[in-house]
Amino acid sequence: MPTPTFMPVGTKGTVKGLTPGDLRTAGAGVVLGNTYHLYLRPGVEVVREAGGLHGFTGWDGPMLTDSGGYQVFSLSHKRRLSEEGVEFASVYDGSSHSFTPELTTRAQEDLGADVAMVLDECPPANASREYHEDSLRRTARWAKRCKEAHAREDQALFGIVQGGLYPDLRRESLERTLDLDFPGYAVGGLSVGESREEMLDMLGLVAPELPADRPRYFMGIGDPVGVLEVIALGVDMFDCVLPTRLARHGAALTNDGRINLKNARYRRDLGPLDPECSCEACGDGYSRAYLAHLVRENELLAHRLVTLHNVHVMGELCRKARKAIKEGCYAQFVEDWVSRYRKAS
Amino acid sequence: MPTPTFMPVGTKGTVKGLTPGDLRTAGAGVVLGNTYHLYLRPGVEVVREAGGLHGFTGWDGPMLTDSGGYQVFSLSHKRRLSEEGVEFASVYDGSSHSFTPELTTRAQEDLGADVAMVLDECPPANASREYHEDSLRRTARWAKRCKEAHAREDQALFGIVQGGLYPDLRRESLERTLDLDFPGYAVGGLSVGESREEMLDMLGLVAPELPADRPRYFMGIGDPVGVLEVIALGVDMFDCVLPTRLARHGAALTNDGRINLKNARYRRDLGPLDPECSCEACGDGYSRAYLAHLVRENELLAHRLVTLHNVHVMGELCRKARKAIKEGCYAQFVEDWVSRYRKAS
Repeated sequence: MPTPTFMPVGTKGTVKGLTPGDLRTAGAGVVLGNTYHLYLRPGVEVVREAGGLHGFTGWDGPMLTDSGGYQVFSLSHKRRLSEEGVEFASVYDGSSHSFTPELTTRAQEDLGADVAMVLDECPPANASREYHEDSLRRTARWAKRCKEAHAREDQALFGIVQGGLYPDLRRESLERTLDLDFPGYAVGGLSVGESREEMLDMLGLVAPELPADRPRYFMGIGDPVGVLEVIALGVDMFDCVLPTRLARHGAALTNDGRINLKNARYRRDLGPLDPECSCEACGDGYSRAYLAHLVRENELLAHRLVTLHNVHVMGELCRKARKAIKEGCYAQFVEDWVSRYRKAS
Repeated sequence: MPTPTFMPVGTKGTVKGLTPGDLRTAGAGVVLGNTYHLYLRPGVEVVREAGGLHGFTGWDGPMLTDSGGYQVFSLSHKRRLSEEGVEFASVYDGSSHSFTPELTTRAQEDLGADVAMVLDECPPANASREYHEDSLRRTARWAKRCKEAHAREDQALFGIVQGGLYPDLRRESLERTLDLDFPGYAVGGLSVGESREEMLDMLGLVAPELPADRPRYFMGIGDPVGVLEVIALGVDMFDCVLPTRLARHGAALTNDGRINLKNARYRRDLGPLDPECSCEACGDGYSRAYLAHLVRENELLAHRLVTLHNVHVMGELCRKARKAIKEGCYAQFVEDWVSRYRKAS
């Protein structure tokens, strides 16, 4: 798999509105699935019986599942954290569930993605230092249990570095995670409360210490400029719902900045969404006026076409970044790309 | 254009969730657009500037627009009918509008479909005989005005036979409409309050009197069995939102009957939606279990794939009907098809 690569999020076993064929033509490298959602609906057994997420969804490219931890902490408010794991109420029906490192590891083995993640806690940035310290140590103990529970040899289990905005805690988490010797490492990223600058500072601290021969995954970034920044810091993989969620709100990422198709100026604009893009939405003759109409009417085809476009733009951006890195002109590429993107926005 | 043909409804300039490419592979013959909706949003000028509905939507096959009359009478409750036309409040924002025969004809010329329809009133079946009588005569006068207003030579304007459930009024409407000499004729169909059997009786009365060398269009039927019945009566074209609306509710039309994907029995069904169907939803390896999951989660991909499937099934049904008619075995074909469809349902 060529890296750096953006991973579109297929929350419930589908990148909303797109087929596997669409994802392929859009240049999606890895598709992400959410264990929290898939565990609750349709349940891991259903997915396992269908041949894992690949068989279930029909996507034959690389996949990654998260552990579900992030969703437990962001979606399920009635939760009880202990050394054993975390109890929570389902966001769907309030039913009680419990995630332990062993359970989320087994669940991810059943889901059968190529990469699984350890169960971690991602505390809010504004939690106390003491809380962050306890949390990262528990996360490290959980990571060890995940590793011990993980048996599937055709699946890589990645560790996760946490530690909030405390440089020394980040270093401690880094050390504890590296000690466990994972085939790939993630850095717990933008979650709750911190600024992007603060988060990039932490990433800048941690990324250079991660082994360069193993994939480095920064969790939760997906705006084009942010993606280019984390690539500069050595990140290979990143995911975010942003490009697909924006699309469903009618916002398209283009080479000339982010445009909101609800804006009145597009009502009669007969030009293509992005003249430089070759995705189905741009290459098949749809005008901005048509797409703007579909967006205003909340039509399914708007969600589908703009989602396809945004995923395609992220795929192209990564392709260009890889090329620039190979040619040794990454900094210049970023400067040019970002200045044009920001100028137009 | 080969007939009989089912016309999927692209209400607002899109068959919900599908691209023109999808419609082509699904075997859609004609795509229908609703003047009521398109007149209000995005407005006919926007569509005209984009090259009419063909240019705006990218569908290069045949298109038909209705006059908007049906929606005025079914969607807009604050309406005032006069000889001149009908005033109504927009279903979107309550704003006041007025449709006259001249206006809806001009609007349809701007929309630029291959077939346009005269403005008609489609009164509820339970309206009084006197009401129906007045209404069909007004509709006939409106039809004349539409014909006089219609100038576009590359567009066919069809007349519409109304008359409710009164055989003599149907005959009167038929005569008045035939007198105007249209290049094609529609029979106002299932609308408000009548049973299907009653409606088919009326169609059976009118259809044989329509000129066989001109297209005969029955408005508002789209269930597979009903479609086969109206084809038997000589109908060439029919439209209905049913196949696409059902799809968005998770109901798939298959060769073995209509199935509701929300039914628990499909949760772990690894078979294809319809083993005899070659559409993308059936041929690309998606299981009923996966589709059922997407339907339960109200995922965009469910709407898209099941809609594509249902349109494809209707296209195939028409193709088979054409073949059977050609081979002189239509009655036998219908008997076989319907008995299997009903047995499984």
